[in-house]
This record gives sequence, structure tokens and C-alpha cells, in this order.
Amino acid sequence: MTEVGRGMAKGGFSRRAFTASAAFAAVAPFVVSSQAEAVIDKPADKPGKGNVRRMTLYAERLPDGRLGYGLEPGKPTIPGPAIEMVEGDTLEIEMVNNLDVPASLHVHGVDYDAASDGTRLNNSVVEPGGRRTYTWRTHAPGRRPGGSIEPGSAGYWHYHDHVVGTDHGTGGIRQGLYGPLVVRRKGDIKPDKQFTVVFNDMSINNQPAHQAPEFVAKLGERVEWIVITHGEFYHTFHIHGHRWADNRTGLLEHPQDQSRIIDTKITGPAESFGFQVIAGERVGPGAWMYHCHVQSHSDMGMAGIFTVTDADGNPPDHSGDGHSANAHH
Amino acid sequence: MTEVGRGMAKGGFSRRAFTASAAFAAVAPFVVSSQAEAVIDKPADKPGKGNVRRMTLYAERLPDGRLGYGLEPGKPTIPGPAIEMVEGDTLEIEMVNNLDVPASLHVHGVDYDAASDGTRLNNSVVEPGGRRTYTWRTHAPGRRPGGSIEPGSAGYWHYHDHVVGTDHGTGGIRQGLYGPLVVRRKGDIKPDKQFTVVFNDMSINNQPAHQAPEFVAKLGERVEWIVITHGEFYHTFHIHGHRWADNRTGLLEHPQDQSRIIDTKITGPAESFGFQVIAGERVGPGAWMYHCHVQSHSDMGMAGIFTVTDADGNPPDHSGDGHSANAHH
Amino acid sequence: MTEVGRGMAKGGFSRRAFTASAAFAAVAPFVVSSQAEAVIDKPADKPGKGNVRRMTLYAERLPDGRLGYGLEPGKPTIPGPAIEMVEGDTLEIEMVNNLDVPASLHVHGVDYDAASDGTRLNNSVVEPGGRRTYTWRTHAPGRRPGGSIEPGSAGYWHYHDHVVGTDHGTGGIRQGLYGPLVVRRKGDIKPDKQFTVVFNDMSINNQPAHQAPEFVAKLGERVEWIVITHGEFYHTFHIHGHRWADNRTGLLEHPQDQSRIIDTKITGPAESFGFQVIAGERVGPGAWMYHCHVQSHSDMGMAGIFTVTDADGNPPDHSGDGHSANAHH
Ligand SMILES: [Cu+2]
Ligand SMILES: [Cu+2]
Ligand SMILES: [Cu+2]
Repeated sequence: MTEVGRGMAKGGFSRRAFTASAAFAAVAPFVVSSQAEAVIDKPADKPGKGNVRRMTLYAERLPDGRLGYGLEPGKPTIPGPAIEMVEGDTLEIEMVNNLDVPASLHVHGVDYDAASDGTRLNNSVVEPGGRRTYTWRTHAPGRRPGGSIEPGSAGYWHYHDHVVGTDHGTGGIRQGLYGPLVVRRKGDIKPDKQFTVVFNDMSINNQPAHQAPEFVAKLGERVEWIVITHGEFYHTFHIHGHRWADNRTGLLEHPQDQSRIIDTKITGPAESFGFQVIAGERVGPGAWMYHCHVQSHSDMGMAGIFTVTDADGNPPDHSGDGHSANAHH
Repeated sequence: MTEVGRGMAKGGFSRRAFTASAAFAAVAPFVVSSQAEAVIDKPADKPGKGNVRRMTLYAERLPDGRLGYGLEPGKPTIPGPAIEMVEGDTLEIEMVNNLDVPASLHVHGVDYDAASDGTRLNNSVVEPGGRRTYTWRTHAPGRRPGGSIEPGSAGYWHYHDHVVGTDHGTGGIRQGLYGPLVVRRKGDIKPDKQFTVVFNDMSINNQPAHQAPEFVAKLGERVEWIVITHGEFYHTFHIHGHRWADNRTGLLEHPQDQSRIIDTKITGPAESFGFQVIAGERVGPGAWMYHCHVQSHSDMGMAGIFTVTDADGNPPDHSGDGHSANAHH
Repeated sequence: MTEVGRGMAKGGFSRRAFTASAAFAAVAPFVVSSQAEAVIDKPADKPGKGNVRRMTLYAERLPDGRLGYGLEPGKPTIPGPAIEMVEGDTLEIEMVNNLDVPASLHVHGVDYDAASDGTRLNNSVVEPGGRRTYTWRTHAPGRRPGGSIEPGSAGYWHYHDHVVGTDHGTGGIRQGLYGPLVVRRKGDIKPDKQFTVVFNDMSINNQPAHQAPEFVAKLGERVEWIVITHGEFYHTFHIHGHRWADNRTGLLEHPQDQSRIIDTKITGPAESFGFQVIAGERVGPGAWMYHCHVQSHSDMGMAGIFTVTDADGNPPDHSGDGHSANAHH
């Protein structure tokens, strides 16, 4: 099961206060199944083939005035809960609007009727105090009757409000009404830990400048990053010491795969991507920065730390003398 | 043959006036042939192997002061006509400059001599009242004598002025001198309908804010989208309820294809991409928004509607009660 | 061996003064080996399998006040020297800081301990007058014990300062402390010539506006372009008359490869990509512009010329009459 990224005791090596965020809590009922299943060339799935699950999502105001989605009343988080589906699954989400303005739930990547669009245009927003069920369906790739391939729903997607402030949800998004959605293909490798980074205007996850979350993993753990952008600006997401393939999973399919390997990626509002890395692979433990690489953005605080401990969880050395970080020996 | 995207009778479900634009008229003489032909590993084509066609393009001022290219005098459109070629074809375009300033025709993606560059640098612009023939050639992929692969010309490309206002055509582009070019590979699947979206500064297709074209298709039609960006800004193109593969065609080659599936893509000036979707596939009829997802851009009017009717052409339901949109049942 | 891109005598066809830049000097000791070696599905490499080389890099101030890295004292260049590695190689770079402020060397894409991070966070910057050895390791792709694929280090990467001005190196980068790094896979095709274009804020290679380098190649030469972005802005890199595949190498692997073929690419700070083209292939000799396609950027001078001569090195014709550019006949 997907673990939770949380802050760790930091010894003397960091001067900033990092706090573990409830935003990274995995959503237990929706994690992927463990059995792998080969993808074969078959007709496109009929809908409704997979599991049907239900959940409730609460849109609420945080004590500090920001807005968030949460799995329980009184516990909104920013980002909202990480929701996972496996291709074929259907998810019925009842959204309860505990705000004093209309709010909604709009999703990217999956299948839904116009009635689940989460827009005023399609009369699918929720009045204050109301509730509405949004239905998200997914499907595996397959071959259409005409012979062309229908892509599957797998991807690193996201959901957000589409009505607070403007008919495009500009106010809701700005204040925190967004979250990640991961749709996996049967057979996809599951991570040990999962971290979500949302570049929302000039913030990371609506945190104050210079207070981006610290993410912590042990050397060798398989870490999944989900990167979402919202707001006005483009950004370039970068991690020190780690890199990934610029494709659906971030993983190569075979050694001759010519996907571009990158450690920096330009991204704009409502784009999302994800990838998995092995923490510290070939670089060892360390305090590895992740940041937007637009220079003024990183200088103004769009930067955090990915801490890779040793395999036992001991914090890395920052001395610069290279005596402790030796995973490659 | 590629059909024409046009406005439809809208009943009561839309409050905005959408007008069918001549810009989406397909260019009959240049549509693709219908026989598929397998791509095999063969030597690179000699030039001049395919058909040679001729056309005339008129650069003119519209009554409202904007500029456009057109297939007939007095009928400029924005975007200019959608031109199609099949790899191997040669196109000789005589451009007639009916403007009062020098203008030109510069193309992306295909093969042309410096004399067809459409730039002052290469003395290939057209004086007011003059005409000049630009020759565009294309070729299939193949193997070079040295063994490496020469890519083919297939792609979602575009053409534009390169001299009005500045030596980079900034004024001509801003006012509407641009259009789409699709080069198909033999065997590529032809669409039922084709829509062109040009993000030009803060407009879509140089239309006033909040007056982006409505595109209409019947449930199940194969719809081709061509997306081009011009001007100063980056944008993120998004469609509700539909998604595509981020590769040459937007289509997967086989079910294991690991191309990223997306519904939002960052794009900047002079980039272009295209893809095909099946209208309403797994989501049903609906008024599906397409828009730039930069929040201020969508709020200021960079948004339109992709209307998917039922298979008989009846307009979709907007009631939000989900009783009419049931393609997935 | 990789040749050097340099200015050529220009006859009467260019009104701008282009100067050959020492920045494009290839680094002889680090060029790739000539024997190709098939990539097979094998376990991931142990580190230290390849060659270990040493070099010294000097961070210095240029006479005009800009900053650069150089291979010899007193000879800094912008961009810094093009460094090449083959997957498996290790490079030990002693950086000598001849500036009056702390400086560092931070690299993208390759393997390094936290002690070679080049950041204050990891205590790996160099005081004025000091020196420090940074170790970069690389590896071929392979299969991890668990079965997933570990990507190799091959790519078009880059290095830059991470401490001058701010903790993100904003001042160092702005003034010129950056350079390209190419890591090749065994079997990758070597170019005849190599050009580096760095979009750094509103400049190309920190040159004044309208003084971007002229790059010159003979018809048929294999030319490698390395494109890096730094600073604040996004850009769209475009070349006239040439195009490439949007993947690791810019080359297709086989004729059915569905990688998108492009001639324009959006890119933001710290992104890098590269590709090879055959100079003048199917378009002939010419003065082919390369430029940022954001209209105000090209108008303000982010544009240069890629001159393709005939096979004997004779300059191309600019007359616009098409009598000289006939490589396609
Ligand atoms: Cu940023
Ligand atoms: Cu936009
Ligand atoms: Cu630019």
C-alpha cells in the first residue's frame, strides 16, 4: 500500500521548519490491486467491467481562509486527497459543499457524462449546503471495431473546482480546491511512497514561500512524484540527482526505448504528469532540492527538499566532504 | 472527404451567438487519397514522386481591418484555408498580394528552397499587387544511404506571413495571416470533421473575446483538432471529456504504446499539434468546453464549446440531470 | 571528431557582423569513441565500468564584465566548453574559482554524490581563489534486479553555477556561467559539427541583441544542435527548413516510429534538448534563420542564421530567384 510522505526529524541540517501535511495521506479504499495482468491486444472494454466504489468529498474552508477538499468533515487538505483508480473502475463521489458559495468537482482524464462535468454550463455545480454525486468511469486500452486503438484511462490526472470565483473556478483553484488522481493500468508498478507537488501561481501546494513540503524516503524506496500546475504561470519542475522518462509512466519499457530522459520539465496550468524514481539511485543519500527552475520563482521560495536517508532511515550528511553518501560504492 | 465544421441550430442551450466560419472550409483538391498503404522500411524517396498540384492564395484585408489568406479574391478567412498534402506531394502556391504592404508565405514542416522561404532575408516576399509562386515539397520517411532514418513530412503544420510589420511578420500574424497545413502519411486515418484552433495572443482565431467558434459533431464522428499558437503568450489547450496521445497523430499505435495520454497541453508561438478524437466516446453527447486553461485567459474569453449531438444530430441536454447523455449504457 | 562551428567569410550576403566564438570549441579529450556497440537487454551496469578522465574548469570574469567557464585560465567562454561523455564514463572536474565571489558547478542528468551538488545546501561551493573537484558518473541503461528498466545517462544536458547572486545561482547564470554536456550512448551517431544555443533571458548565448552567432555547415554535413534555456522566460526554438524528432536523439529509430516531428519547441529555464539534422537536406543551401518564435523576442534580436553552403563551401544565393539552391534536383 502507498505510504505517506511526512516530515522527519532533521538533526541540525536544515534551518527551515517543515511540517508533515495531511495532504499526502493515501486513500486506502482506492489503492491498486497487487496482481499484475499482461496488457494484450483485445477489443475495447465494455463500461462497468471493473469495481464500483463510493466515496464522499467535503469542500470546506480551512481555519486560515484557504479552501480544500477533504475525506472527512472538518479535515480539508491542500492538495485534496490522492485518489487512485485502476482502469475499469468506476468511482461515485458524493461532494458535500460546506462552503458559503457554490462549488464543484471537475476532473481530467477519465470518462464522465456531461452531468458530472462540474460546470455551470452543464448545471452540475453544488449550492452551499448541498451535495451531488459525480461519477467517474475508466477503461483499459483496446481496439475499436474499426481497428484503431482506443487509449486507456491510465495517467497522472487531477481534479479541481470549476465555479468558485469565475465560471472557470479561478478563485477556487487559487485558494486550494484541487487534488491528484492516479489511474493505473493493471500491471503498473506500485510505488512505496507518493508525493504531490502542485505549482499554484507562485506557491507549492498553497504553502507560504520558502515553506514547501519536505519529502522523505529511504535509500532504494520507489517514490512516485505527481506534478500538477494551476493558475497563471508556466514553471519548470526540477529535482536534483534524479531523472525520469518523459512518457506515460516515467519508466522505460525496454532498454532501447528512446523516450527522452529528463530532470526538468516545462509545465503550464492544468497540465499534470508523474513518474517514479528509486530514491538515491546511483547518487546516494542526500538533501536533494526540488524546485521550479524559473530563477525568480526559486529565489522567491518555490523550492523544497527531497531528503533521502540511508536504508535505515538515518539522515544524510550535508558536510560536503562526501564521506557518508556512498551508495555507489 | 473531410467535412466542414460549422455552427448548428442551438435551440435554447447556448446564449452566445456562434457563427460558422468559412475558415474551416476544407480544400477539396488536396484531400488525402483513401487507399491505405503500409509503411515499410525502404530507401528515402526521391523528390517529385507524388502528385504536383497548384493553387492560388490571396492575401487580403477583411472589411473589419483584419488580414487573411483566402482561396478566392474577396474571400479571406481567419485562419486561412486548411491545406492538406500526402507525403510525396508537391504543392505550387501562387500567392497574390492584394494588400497595400509587402506580404509573404512562410511554411513550417515541409521541404522548400530558400527562394520559397517567404522572408526578406531570402528575397522571397511579395510586393503589393504582386504575385509569387512558393513551392512546397513533401516526402515519406525512409532510410538514408548511411543507414539512419530520414523522418517523413507528415505532421500538423502551419503557414504564416513573415514580413508584415516586422521581418518576423509580427504584424501580419497578429492581424490574421496564418493557416493550418496537414501532411498525411499514406495509411493515416482520415477524419470526418476537422477543427482548427489558433491561440493568437489572447484570441482564438482572431475572434473577439467570448466569441470563440462553436464546433459541432455527431456522437461517434471522428473529429480532427489542429491547434496552432501565435504571438506572445504560452497557453494550455484543454478539452473537456476527450483526450489524446501526445505523439505525431494523437493516436496510439498499439495497446502497449506508452505515449502519454493528455487532455491539456502547453504550447507556445509557432508550435502546432493535432489529434483525432471520437466525438463523445464513453462520455456521450454534451456541450464540452474547449479552452485555454491559463485561468485569466479562460476568464477573459479564450474558451469555446465543442457540441456533441446524438447520432441523429439532436442537441445535447444541459439540465445536469444526466437523463439524456447515455452513450455509455 | 566533432568539428568546431565557426563564422565564415560572408561575401555580400549578410549585413551583420558575426564572430566565431571560442564557446563552440569541442573538448578534444572527451569526444566519443568511434566503435558502435549494440544496446542489449542486460543487467544495470556497475559504476566505474567506463573510463575515468580528469579536467579543470576555470570560473572567471570576462573583460566586459560577464562571467564564464573556460578550459584554460584567462580564456572563459559563454557558453562554457561543450563537455562530452559516453555512458559509463566518470569525469572528475576540478573547478578553480578565479572570481571574487563564491561560485559552483551544478550539473543536470548525470550521477553525482551530494558532495558534488554545487549548492550551499550541500556545502559544495567554491570560495574565491579556491578549487574543488566535482565527480560526474554515468551509466548505460539496464535492467534492475526487480525487473524494471533503469534509464541510462545519455542526453543533452548542461551545467551551471548554483550560488552566485542567490542560492539558486541566478546571478551566475544571468552573467554566463553555464555550458552544455552531451552524454552519448555507445552506438549513437556522432555529428560532423555541433552548435549550442542558450536562450538566457532575452539573449542568445549572452550576446547582444541582433548579434546571435552565425552557424555554418556544408550541404550534407550532420549538424548537432544543443538547445538550453536559462533565466526567466519561456521561448520557442525554431529553425527554418529543418526539423527533428521530439525524442532523446532527435532521430527516428525506424520508419514506423510515431515520434512527433517538429521544427519549433517550447522550452523553459533549465530545460535542454538536442538533435541532429543533415544540413540542407531536401532544401538545399541557404541562409536559414534560427530564432525564438515568440514574436517580440525575435523582433528584439533573438535570431541568428544557420548558413548552409554548397558541398564545396561556397556561400548560398540570397537572390530569391531559386537558381542556386537545388540540392533536391
Ligand atoms: Cu516557477
Ligand atoms: Cu492562454
Ligand atoms: Cu523567446
